[in-house]
Amino acid sequence: MTKEILLSLLNEKKYKSIHDVLSKYNAVDIANLLSELEMKDLAPVFRMIEKDKAAEVFSYMENDQREHLLNSFTNQEIQHILDSMYTDDMIDFLEDMPANVVKPLLENIDSETRAEINKILKYGEDSVGSIMTTEFVELYPDMTVSEALARIKKVGIESETIYTCYVIERRKLVGVVSAKKLLISDDDVLIKDIMHEEFVFSHTTDDREDAAKMFRKYGFIALPVLDSEGLIVGIVTFDDAIDVLTEETTEDMQKMAAMVANDESYLKTSVFTHAKNRIVWLLVLMLSASVTGMIISKYEKAFAVVPLLVSFIPMLMDTGGNCGSQSATLIIRGLAVDELHFSDFWKIIWKEFRVSLLVSAVLALANTLRIYIIYKDLALAVVVGFSIICTVIVAKMVGCTLPVLAKKLKMDPAIMAAPLITTIVDTCSIIIYFKIATIMFDIQ
Amino acid sequence: MTKEILLSLLNEKKYKSIHDVLSKYNAVDIANLLSELEMKDLAPVFRMIEKDKAAEVFSYMENDQREHLLNSFTNQEIQHILDSMYTDDMIDFLEDMPANVVKPLLENIDSETRAEINKILKYGEDSVGSIMTTEFVELYPDMTVSEALARIKKVGIESETIYTCYVIERRKLVGVVSAKKLLISDDDVLIKDIMHEEFVFSHTTDDREDAAKMFRKYGFIALPVLDSEGLIVGIVTFDDAIDVLTEETTEDMQKMAAMVANDESYLKTSVFTHAKNRIVWLLVLMLSASVTGMIISKYEKAFAVVPLLVSFIPMLMDTGGNCGSQSATLIIRGLAVDELHFSDFWKIIWKEFRVSLLVSAVLALANTLRIYIIYKDLALAVVVGFSIICTVIVAKMVGCTLPVLAKKLKMDPAIMAAPLITTIVDTCSIIIYFKIATIMFDIQ
Repeated sequence: MTKEILLSLLNEKKYKSIHDVLSKYNAVDIANLLSELEMKDLAPVFRMIEKDKAAEVFSYMENDQREHLLNSFTNQEIQHILDSMYTDDMIDFLEDMPANVVKPLLENIDSETRAEINKILKYGEDSVGSIMTTEFVELYPDMTVSEALARIKKVGIESETIYTCYVIERRKLVGVVSAKKLLISDDDVLIKDIMHEEFVFSHTTDDREDAAKMFRKYGFIALPVLDSEGLIVGIVTFDDAIDVLTEETTEDMQKMAAMVANDESYLKTSVFTHAKNRIVWLLVLMLSASVTGMIISKYEKAFAVVPLLVSFIPMLMDTGGNCGSQSATLIIRGLAVDELHFSDFWKIIWKEFRVSLLVSAVLALANTLRIYIIYKDLALAVVVGFSIICTVIVAKMVGCTLPVLAKKLKMDPAIMAAPLITTIVDTCSIIIYFKIATIMFDIQ
Repeated sequence: MTKEILLSLLNEKKYKSIHDVLSKYNAVDIANLLSELEMKDLAPVFRMIEKDKAAEVFSYMENDQREHLLNSFTNQEIQHILDSMYTDDMIDFLEDMPANVVKPLLENIDSETRAEINKILKYGEDSVGSIMTTEFVELYPDMTVSEALARIKKVGIESETIYTCYVIERRKLVGVVSAKKLLISDDDVLIKDIMHEEFVFSHTTDDREDAAKMFRKYGFIALPVLDSEGLIVGIVTFDDAIDVLTEETTEDMQKMAAMVANDESYLKTSVFTHAKNRIVWLLVLMLSASVTGMIISKYEKAFAVVPLLVSFIPMLMDTGGNCGSQSATLIIRGLAVDELHFSDFWKIIWKEFRVSLLVSAVLALANTLRIYIIYKDLALAVVVGFSIICTVIVAKMVGCTLPVLAKKLKMDPAIMAAPLITTIVDTCSIIIYFKIATIMFDIQ
């Protein structure tokens, strides 16, 4: 259904038809459709969504629309939505709402859920605790498979996933068992005989990115979360892990392009915030590029004698920047997906060194030939060619070293990317270039 | 268990203990442990892995190790491993092996599986068909829940996921039902009464990236795949989707850093391949940067009169490059995660224009002040300041426009990134700078 059809049905007061059509769509698509509506149409249309699906649609909606809906809802409606949301979706939502909206909401929720939410809200923004959900299926070692299935039938509807069940003894997690295993085992088999005692877990205070990476590595559906005493307090599900991986990659890319990371969507971010996120690094890098400029002005004599020297500055700078950013990107991404580690340091340097020899030889040859053919000046061709070789080697060495060192120093490798490396390489390449030129052309 | 402990147990011939310890680990970790072994120890240790787990461990191993194992295995062992692998894992594996290894392997497999595999191998590398698996649970509309559960019990062990079951009528997919729904419904309920008739699906020939994005959007566990006649031929599971998303992002980042995309791991890629992947763009960009250089040489007179002009070239070039890459990165990533679309074109341009005004004003002010204080030359300060404003605006406009246009032209937005934009912006900024300078300093 398109927005136009929806609005025209709404105009004709064909509410029953809207209800029927919406019931055919899944929650994500309904939320997308709602996002195109004006605020005034939002509450009426939202009320036409099936009760069972409303909370899920609400989970997927944009923040400004949700805030608007809350203001037009009765207490009872709010109660119903909140009761039907999973804890992790509710936390996401509460974290995004302003404090004056959150307070009255929390008063609408039963005290047990409120206590849970308050606890999760207190975990740091980047912690596993902040993305976990507290609804999961608990089983006990001495249950039979049929008892376990009966329990799932009873509590399953309220659990975000039933596909991994957690076997608990005195609140300690002693094993996990998949719904698949339960479904293909005979009724009287004991849980303790089919559960896996070797399982991967995470702690509430761990970095959410590390937890998300475990999903990529092991491909599981849910990850149990333990508190500081080793008791199970929640689970993280794979859909949240995908979101975390996507967000963290976006943040990495923003940092690599010299911006302050920002997880709001591009269009929703204000012009002022966009400018603020970009200006800091631009100022820092502009200042350091000015240092390169000052170095150039020291060689005024050189380009007074050979003015053509100036015209190779852009080519040297760009080539250095591109070579550095190639190496930095490969290493930063390799570190991010756990393909590279600090222990590979020397292997990386040795590989990049050989690559830089090959690449610089080709680039230098192409340039030397071009210059010799166009300007018939062998000395100039040699100066530029040799400068390229040095620049490429320096660029690739700096580009591969800085991210690995940053990782070792527990800094984010992503901020060691192209812009910073370009600025460093610029300075080096300019010095190399003019040093070689002054020697070759015998300029005092 | 560390590699050292494993090797010392192996040395002491304590095979039973190795077997017992390995049975406590999950397949991913065993594969990681094996990756540290020398080839000669590989086959003996692999044979100590429980039979049930061996195929899974094999799925996670590195290609060179797998090829080595195949050569030391008996036909019977190969048969066992291949029979226990899921189709999608087997396809991954076969795609990675050289042709002379694949042929005898296919002869070892039963003809039905072989036919399936051959079909999947024929789908394009980037197609949904190439990542799908053919093992899934089929149910029928008139089954009861208890009949469905009995069926899962029977075929479940061979299905990669049982958590979404597919309801089929004359090979047509008519609905999907989750294992959760089955487990919480009463035994005599009919499948057709609880199945969802509105479901999302993909076609074998669709781009695998588009399918993977649907997992991110909808958060489901599996996606049904239909052939050209609308019949269900397989499913894609979420773990493969996560892998595709990770690979595609890595490829985007490589393209954005002016490299040919390569999905082999950094350390496994040879120096020669690394160099080959990087040299093409470096040559192209070096050539275009030379154009910028030629433009500079046209203004020899300007920097003969005011030599200081040369020293601001690096700052202008770097600032332009950084501003352009900021905009390009935000837009490319926004397009990749479906947050931005071609329809947002004018919104994006208008936003970037305002951001560039704000940012350039701050940068120009900082520079003008710095230059005036250091050199006490107002004309020079104005020339540089005004050039920065123009450069930043051009950089941000080019940076945001090219990726969106590439998307519209069905090209990959990622290749419109920093390096290409930097080169374009360089040329513009140099022209602007010297034009303004020649006017201000009245140079003919």
